[in-house]
Amino acid sequence: MAKRTITPRSEDYSQWYVDVVLQAQMADYAPVKGCMVIRPNGYAIWEKMQAALDGMFKETGHQNAYFPLLIPESFLHKEAEHVEGFSPECAVVTHGGGKPLEEPLVIRPTSETIIWAMYKKWIDSHRDLPLLYNQWANVVRWEMRTRLFLRTTEFLWQEGHTAHATEEEAEEETLRMLGIYRKFAEEYMAMPVICGRKTEKEKFAGAVRTYCIEAMMQDGRALQVGTSHNLGQNFAKAFDVTFQDEQGQRQYVYATSWGASTRLIGGVIMTHSDDDGLVVPPRLAPLPVVIVPIWPKEELRPTVLEGIDKITRDWRDLKFHVDAREGYKPGFKYNEWEIRGVPIRVEVGPRDLEKEQVVFVRRDNGEKIFVPASEARAKIDEVLNAIQTNLFENARKRMEDRTVVIDNYEEMKRLNEENSGFFWAHWCGDRACENRLQEETKATIRCLPFDQRKEPGKCLLCGKPSSERVLMAKAY
Amino acid sequence: MAKRTITPRSEDYSQWYVDVVLQAQMADYAPVKGCMVIRPNGYAIWEKMQAALDGMFKETGHQNAYFPLLIPESFLHKEAEHVEGFSPECAVVTHGGGKPLEEPLVIRPTSETIIWAMYKKWIDSHRDLPLLYNQWANVVRWEMRTRLFLRTTEFLWQEGHTAHATEEEAEEETLRMLGIYRKFAEEYMAMPVICGRKTEKEKFAGAVRTYCIEAMMQDGRALQVGTSHNLGQNFAKAFDVTFQDEQGQRQYVYATSWGASTRLIGGVIMTHSDDDGLVVPPRLAPLPVVIVPIWPKEELRPTVLEGIDKITRDWRDLKFHVDAREGYKPGFKYNEWEIRGVPIRVEVGPRDLEKEQVVFVRRDNGEKIFVPASEARAKIDEVLNAIQTNLFENARKRMEDRTVVIDNYEEMKRLNEENSGFFWAHWCGDRACENRLQEETKATIRCLPFDQRKEPGKCLLCGKPSSERVLMAKAY
Repeated sequence: MAKRTITPRSEDYSQWYVDVVLQAQMADYAPVKGCMVIRPNGYAIWEKMQAALDGMFKETGHQNAYFPLLIPESFLHKEAEHVEGFSPECAVVTHGGGKPLEEPLVIRPTSETIIWAMYKKWIDSHRDLPLLYNQWANVVRWEMRTRLFLRTTEFLWQEGHTAHATEEEAEEETLRMLGIYRKFAEEYMAMPVICGRKTEKEKFAGAVRTYCIEAMMQDGRALQVGTSHNLGQNFAKAFDVTFQDEQGQRQYVYATSWGASTRLIGGVIMTHSDDDGLVVPPRLAPLPVVIVPIWPKEELRPTVLEGIDKITRDWRDLKFHVDAREGYKPGFKYNEWEIRGVPIRVEVGPRDLEKEQVVFVRRDNGEKIFVPASEARAKIDEVLNAIQTNLFENARKRMEDRTVVIDNYEEMKRLNEENSGFFWAHWCGDRACENRLQEETKATIRCLPFDQRKEPGKCLLCGKPSSERVLMAKAY
Repeated sequence: MAKRTITPRSEDYSQWYVDVVLQAQMADYAPVKGCMVIRPNGYAIWEKMQAALDGMFKETGHQNAYFPLLIPESFLHKEAEHVEGFSPECAVVTHGGGKPLEEPLVIRPTSETIIWAMYKKWIDSHRDLPLLYNQWANVVRWEMRTRLFLRTTEFLWQEGHTAHATEEEAEEETLRMLGIYRKFAEEYMAMPVICGRKTEKEKFAGAVRTYCIEAMMQDGRALQVGTSHNLGQNFAKAFDVTFQDEQGQRQYVYATSWGASTRLIGGVIMTHSDDDGLVVPPRLAPLPVVIVPIWPKEELRPTVLEGIDKITRDWRDLKFHVDAREGYKPGFKYNEWEIRGVPIRVEVGPRDLEKEQVVFVRRDNGEKIFVPASEARAKIDEVLNAIQTNLFENARKRMEDRTVVIDNYEEMKRLNEENSGFFWAHWCGDRACENRLQEETKATIRCLPFDQRKEPGKCLLCGKPSSERVLMAKAY
């Protein structure tokens, strides 16, 4: 057995994160720099995420498709901002089947260009619109500094790409999908988020407007967990995609794209986990319940297992696992399941069977709960819900505690240095001030939040007039 | 609307196949040679396939994981047969992030090498075994001659990779997974198959033994729809993966791998479809039922739709679609849903509502069935089952009719030329005869079938003694 020691968060937050990922066996480093292997304990969470998001996409009329991995390099060049943003990050295939290629191919860093090349073939009339497609795929972006799940050269994601007849429809779709990400973050990931619009500097390369949701990690830094782009007619123009409207006129098509990736798994870890290992919100837990039988003497093993069998006979609708391994002490098993983040541990020993009870231990707060065996099944649902709510509530409080409305740049710098966190501050709208903020504090403007009143003020940096506060924070 | 004309099979079978794929909007050609786009109508079938196979994998104790797309070129060279088989087919990444790479990376053509490099890190003791992992992924093989779904440069698949302590266990696993493919082919794809072992010439590059399932397409040619490989200790030795057994000795690990891909979709099309378009077995049909309302006069539309609403009120457990589009005649809609392969079309007009009946039309045989409205829901399940059975039965009969037990090479050549089909013939076991068969007839030895009695005979080609018949056929 490998040694298991997780560095405490207070000592080294970055190392703590790596320890949790590796020791909960969620991912491992791959032989190629910046790439990772997602191990079953991590992938199972991704499957739960996929199921939930995919369901919401389909409910709102989207269909899945699959577009090619390889994109002719020249496609990237058709949209000016897009190539500038993505070209430096591309992995390039120059040889295939033992021969040099006539034109190099890039591995998709995102699929707008290949998808709009196809939409040109498929869209002709207003009757062909809207096209509401999504794909689940891998993408590659050559990153300098990587971190398991949060930033890797290859990652898994979904990317939605829709085509619309009008600007209004495209804007509606962009915001609808942002709403789905928000709902998913809050209700599944138990993660409160700030929704808003990116600045011109931070928007997607090729978008008219980028919307995002930003969450706060335990160290006070921000993580962007989903983005939704209104692409206007930029890609339609780049790929000459027009449709005949109801009046018989040819018009360029309006586009959106939106994505969320395996970085969400990193976000879950950094939001909820603790010094004992992974903590997962029950709605994303591949295994919500583990039962650890306790036999003080070897000869009691069959009796205890039989007792558990009786208690769980009608638990068919629940995913649970009985850890009946021999040769391991209960304490060892507790540790192992704690590291892996199973929300409820059920302990059952001979005494419990005599008393017709079982013991629950909550992963989120360690609370022990004694439950009559006959009520255990119903109690599980109740406790899982309580854990889900408690995790959200903790994250919400943390965000509240570490969010400061601020008007003094020196104080902001001091707080940001000491403690990170979110800062609501006035900004004049100038790129120069935005750049200076980043250079001097490493914080960036995360978004122009939706959820705020207009309020006159002065730019935190230059003192010029400003009409609203923006969200500033250091980010992953 | 694009013109829809499907070339009849009798005229040009290959063109018929392409017409069905394109006109049912299952896939389209991508801008990169040999690659395809899987459109929603095709991808939805893949999702049904994934759900069924994934369920069977998990029931048998397998877990999903995800390994990187990019593999250092040197890894391929560690297993001698493997590199010989796959190196000529690789797409090679030579640049990343704007710079030439120190070592070229290949896009995985299959993942044995990267996976066994990781297994070396994870396997140490017999307690770590077996490892039963699967991944759903894209792979790239630089193919000379491609065909939508059946052979494309990039394709989607699942690849299982397991590690075992003993040779027996590995062999059991290899056969267990072949059994799952067989079950899936027969029960979901409605496709009878021949199970057997590949010859040395045809086995997987790096395997000790390759098992396969082979199906017959409507033109009499074979399609390999799944393979399962016993890899012995070849990859464990190449990557130095050992474990400590219960006696404290270090032993090399035994391996299997097994895969099935989006070519299955091509197999379904080529097995069941007809000159009117796609035919899909109901268990794989994303949309099992479409309802086409009929209104002889525009003003009857609300009444008909309301009637349908009443009839379908308790159909919540069924996926169906009401095609209430205005401006299209019912006949146009019938055609469109026929091309797309929806198993049951339900027609409802004012007369039907008066009689409290609906009309079913079966996609597989065109049969019209008049059903009392109150019994329609139950009848749907019955008819879907009947279609599933009928499709399997048709395919079974075709395979029976076009399979010949043969001992005369000249006659085999004549039949193979005229009519293709499966040939059960004796083979001496020599590679020379196997090569000659392929050169002279384009047929190959598809497998050494499990399901046959031992029987002395003479090699079809050279006349030397043989103890069993093999399966010969031209293949896709």
